[in-house]
Amino acid sequence: MQALVLEETKRLRLRDITLDEPLTPHDVRVRIHTVGICGSDVHYYQHGAIGPFVVRAPMVLGHEAAGVVEEVGAAVTTLRVGDRVCMEPGIPDANSRPTRLGLYNLDPTVRFWATPPVHGCLRPTVVHPAAFTFRLPDNVSFGEGAMVEPLAVGLHAANKARIKPGDVAVVLGAGPIGMVTAMAALAGGCSRVFITDVQPPKLALAATLGAITPVNVRDENLGDLVRRATGGWGADLVFDAVGVPQSLAQALDVLCPGGAIVLIGMPGAPVPFDVVAAQVKEARFETIFRYAHVFPRALELMGSRKIDVRPLITDRYAFADSIAAFDYAVRPRPTSVKVQIEL
Amino acid sequence: MQALVLEETKRLRLRDITLDEPLTPHDVRVRIHTVGICGSDVHYYQHGAIGPFVVRAPMVLGHEAAGVVEEVGAAVTTLRVGDRVCMEPGIPDANSRPTRLGLYNLDPTVRFWATPPVHGCLRPTVVHPAAFTFRLPDNVSFGEGAMVEPLAVGLHAANKARIKPGDVAVVLGAGPIGMVTAMAALAGGCSRVFITDVQPPKLALAATLGAITPVNVRDENLGDLVRRATGGWGADLVFDAVGVPQSLAQALDVLCPGGAIVLIGMPGAPVPFDVVAAQVKEARFETIFRYAHVFPRALELMGSRKIDVRPLITDRYAFADSIAAFDYAVRPRPTSVKVQIEL
Amino acid sequence: MQALVLEETKRLRLRDITLDEPLTPHDVRVRIHTVGICGSDVHYYQHGAIGPFVVRAPMVLGHEAAGVVEEVGAAVTTLRVGDRVCMEPGIPDANSRPTRLGLYNLDPTVRFWATPPVHGCLRPTVVHPAAFTFRLPDNVSFGEGAMVEPLAVGLHAANKARIKPGDVAVVLGAGPIGMVTAMAALAGGCSRVFITDVQPPKLALAATLGAITPVNVRDENLGDLVRRATGGWGADLVFDAVGVPQSLAQALDVLCPGGAIVLIGMPGAPVPFDVVAAQVKEARFETIFRYAHVFPRALELMGSRKIDVRPLITDRYAFADSIAAFDYAVRPRPTSVKVQIEL
Amino acid sequence: MQALVLEETKRLRLRDITLDEPLTPHDVRVRIHTVGICGSDVHYYQHGAIGPFVVRAPMVLGHEAAGVVEEVGAAVTTLRVGDRVCMEPGIPDANSRPTRLGLYNLDPTVRFWATPPVHGCLRPTVVHPAAFTFRLPDNVSFGEGAMVEPLAVGLHAANKARIKPGDVAVVLGAGPIGMVTAMAALAGGCSRVFITDVQPPKLALAATLGAITPVNVRDENLGDLVRRATGGWGADLVFDAVGVPQSLAQALDVLCPGGAIVLIGMPGAPVPFDVVAAQVKEARFETIFRYAHVFPRALELMGSRKIDVRPLITDRYAFADSIAAFDYAVRPRPTSVKVQIEL
Repeated sequence: MQALVLEETKRLRLRDITLDEPLTPHDVRVRIHTVGICGSDVHYYQHGAIGPFVVRAPMVLGHEAAGVVEEVGAAVTTLRVGDRVCMEPGIPDANSRPTRLGLYNLDPTVRFWATPPVHGCLRPTVVHPAAFTFRLPDNVSFGEGAMVEPLAVGLHAANKARIKPGDVAVVLGAGPIGMVTAMAALAGGCSRVFITDVQPPKLALAATLGAITPVNVRDENLGDLVRRATGGWGADLVFDAVGVPQSLAQALDVLCPGGAIVLIGMPGAPVPFDVVAAQVKEARFETIFRYAHVFPRALELMGSRKIDVRPLITDRYAFADSIAAFDYAVRPRPTSVKVQIEL
Repeated sequence: MQALVLEETKRLRLRDITLDEPLTPHDVRVRIHTVGICGSDVHYYQHGAIGPFVVRAPMVLGHEAAGVVEEVGAAVTTLRVGDRVCMEPGIPDANSRPTRLGLYNLDPTVRFWATPPVHGCLRPTVVHPAAFTFRLPDNVSFGEGAMVEPLAVGLHAANKARIKPGDVAVVLGAGPIGMVTAMAALAGGCSRVFITDVQPPKLALAATLGAITPVNVRDENLGDLVRRATGGWGADLVFDAVGVPQSLAQALDVLCPGGAIVLIGMPGAPVPFDVVAAQVKEARFETIFRYAHVFPRALELMGSRKIDVRPLITDRYAFADSIAAFDYAVRPRPTSVKVQIEL
Repeated sequence: MQALVLEETKRLRLRDITLDEPLTPHDVRVRIHTVGICGSDVHYYQHGAIGPFVVRAPMVLGHEAAGVVEEVGAAVTTLRVGDRVCMEPGIPDANSRPTRLGLYNLDPTVRFWATPPVHGCLRPTVVHPAAFTFRLPDNVSFGEGAMVEPLAVGLHAANKARIKPGDVAVVLGAGPIGMVTAMAALAGGCSRVFITDVQPPKLALAATLGAITPVNVRDENLGDLVRRATGGWGADLVFDAVGVPQSLAQALDVLCPGGAIVLIGMPGAPVPFDVVAAQVKEARFETIFRYAHVFPRALELMGSRKIDVRPLITDRYAFADSIAAFDYAVRPRPTSVKVQIEL
Repeated sequence: MQALVLEETKRLRLRDITLDEPLTPHDVRVRIHTVGICGSDVHYYQHGAIGPFVVRAPMVLGHEAAGVVEEVGAAVTTLRVGDRVCMEPGIPDANSRPTRLGLYNLDPTVRFWATPPVHGCLRPTVVHPAAFTFRLPDNVSFGEGAMVEPLAVGLHAANKARIKPGDVAVVLGAGPIGMVTAMAALAGGCSRVFITDVQPPKLALAATLGAITPVNVRDENLGDLVRRATGGWGADLVFDAVGVPQSLAQALDVLCPGGAIVLIGMPGAPVPFDVVAAQVKEARFETIFRYAHVFPRALELMGSRKIDVRPLITDRYAFADSIAAFDYAVRPRPTSVKVQIEL
């Protein structure tokens, strides 16, 4: 089959590849319809590695996918040929201790699409475990289905935050993950969200997505704004979708007594942490790694239109133009959020 | 001042009453603007008692109120004259053990408006602790402010449920409390709500309030509907806003493994409980008594329009027509949800 | 191999049986050393059924077992030949939705030893998944290892209770499960436990197991005792290990405001539930079905001697005397708690 | 009355002082029996300040106290003259938002003994709110009563950790707070605790306090030890009672996937935080500031002897020798844990 292959750093090719994928009884074969480009795909394309994960052999890119079930394993009872689906890209070892505890995202032996040496899904078909393949509601498009993966990060963060209905939240950073986190926080019970960035187009888009107040931290003091809006109390929750050295201090500044901070962004090096500033507020910190158990929840929220990710799908390319899509994703327009490829 | 006084069972009078209400340093005096009529007010009017609470002396009715701050105690820093506010009707003992633990609604010595022998708020002014008086957002009307009290019951139930984003909920009963509970469940993170009743007008109204599926349990099988909608899994949460003997069995039938049931309705006698049916699903049960700490959250959610209670305010009367309002509330039209009196 | 077979109701035989048990890569073969007799074993012996589970063909009894690893599957990395182990008797479907969520005890397709039609472990060897086989600490005997299964019920209840350090608990019922629950509650953070029964020998034994106050409810008023001991506040937690119609009322009577009740005992029919009595305390109810994820915790607590179940092993029989052991277990001495068979 | 007064940095005097302490209706007057010396007392003595809290006027020291009720306010119902008691040293504003939420330790207007400008309790009598005065069980001595305050820090940490029965914990640091935290973790449900330090006498004492494994981090690798003891999994909980720059890295190294770290020690400056190392384990962090609601729990655990702090009371002085006691506390023997003064 033809696939988008990262041959080596900065060299993509759309070419034939032979992948031996037998269909075991618990698997389905899915014809891919839409694949979103993630920042990690772009990073592998540009740099050939992310931390300890180094591309040492040609690898198919892509891990945000939706498609149609084409073949069903003998033991599968939850899906049928023709079902429109999206897939969770990480397959854990069912026998590992984290998996059995329900923490399958923390299984160190997980096989995750387009994380070397595992091939991704920018190709016509994939074989995938039925347990990690989810039926799309009728009113959810393939494009939205391919957005479930990034949305899952925001929802997992919202889950960990343990939102109480009516909480006021701050999201640091209005990139794609910041935006889905703001949507997840609102859908998950927050009354409203302050979102920060320094790029006006991103803030302008974010402001259209719900009860979201954009804050350009170049011009405005976030802490003052939030305190004024909350009678001096502060934000119940802060989601850090940036992960820069200043994030923690900013999060602690706007946080209310007894509040919680969810660390989503991944700083490149240790950041300074003012423990005493956290203690005087008894701040709780949650950290997340990918997600677990949230795909069905994302689909429920999309199906009931409590979350509508369609404004985030800003750019679409045909499969034949995949390399152009990646080159665009390296330097997108400032109004761009998510680039998708349709097969 | 003139007040709506329940002289004895079935006898209301709008008449002068002398109430000695000194303003202590932590109090405010509020000019009442709107008061909603609650089922408990109607019940005292008709029966003179609710359980152990018996009206033995003339008592002013009303406990759902909004108004304007008219005078401010010396130690009050959070409110100013002219502030538009609503009030939490129960005043606990600050020194009781439940109050110190944050469970002030469980303080047995709480003084609650229009619960004998404590006078209610259907009168021109009340003196109230600033700590239980909350400023209305600019876009929230007095009528909505007077709805915060019933909404607080639904929000407290949503809080206790510990909703995870995307949960599917069932609300049993589409009376006023069922409706605000459905709204609270959606605002608090549920993807959608099935609401049951046997009165078509109530179900029709409920269906307009959000991602709410009305189920007339006279004609439809709730369990089948919910299981079909959830791939056979069941509802994550069930809120029982009815409290009849069959509620528990119905709640357990539709519940998913590991789900939770919140008991809001107050049955008149012990109900049969199939413990083993609960155990095979490891059902969790939460019970609620009034509410605690949710007025500010209700106002946040109203202010950001995540909750809009205006469709529930179906009938308005002038203060001079208070007795007519109560007589209407005894036998309201089927489309009626909340009757309010404006002073 | 020779096994203790329940041929039909009231007819046990120690006889040869052929069981085809291939060792798959994730399994171990365990030579059984000790098996405890559970109330359910006795019930199948006497009545041939428990609820919907009917013994329709000869079935080996026993599900509380410890032994030695004799053979190890190719993919097993956590165990070695010679390891002393105990086994979790229920094997869920790794692909079911409850299992993936970490709620494997709620998987309706679980295969559980000595629950028809699945054979139990009163036989020389069993093949078992390594993931449900746990190494005993060096200082934990086989007898104690075979007690992990019943202890797991108490620990799971303690887990669900969400004990806060220093909580005061009440355990209703001083049978084997009541006793392990009291021990689990103490080990799990309670400061002390009141345990009830009507049999003086059981109460006398319970009183030796830790900070446990025995209460003979024939002679003493539990509610008065607990309130006196807690300054009128009540017990933070109540574990119902009896499951009779009066249990719920008794649990609610002694409970403190905001407390929790864990329902362990399985009443034979629906019980009356005073919902309003629960609501005025905002009681939380947890129900349990067997256990999940607690075997390693039980072994940690035994290994550090925070839990010492040895006083509960009151009677031992040789495998050859298995039928005598069961006949004794049908009508044990009042001082008897756990009968074990050694192979 | 005569009191131990810190006149200025490094100058203590035992001298007469006039304190105007009227007894309001909710207060009790307590005759002080025992007062423990805390590290903060010693720090004020030596340096005259802790962070923003500067001693600008003579101040009575001491905040760990037990004594006897001598006089009771008119509204007090929970205490009687002659009751043996200990006192919580911080008095919050009952009307503040944190206090009403049950987070009274986070009230910024709290008045805390021996925190400038509030006088401490090293004097014959104090007037204190009954709500923050707790009766000692009969078998708890005044010395133990005066230990409740430091123990409360450990218990609050254990509370925040949300221990599950059988958790394995690590406590970094075997100073007084490390030791009470280890005891609280064990009493609160942990199966065992690894405690670290570099001083052999402290580790030797800690090893006598329960299922505690001492680890001298000068000689031993904590991470290796814990992993070996937990089958490679790691510790469920880490309590950092040190608060040095390396603590966080060490805590993250020994932590299991999905585990939690409680930050008790207060570093003097921001510490480096490897966010990604936390994320790959989805570590949760809790921070604590003093304590709330744990004095009654500490007393329950002392009364049932689940916690026995007597081995920690290593040095006793008479009130007349208070200055000598402080001078000793500045440079104690390595085997010293808690120095107390008896009035």
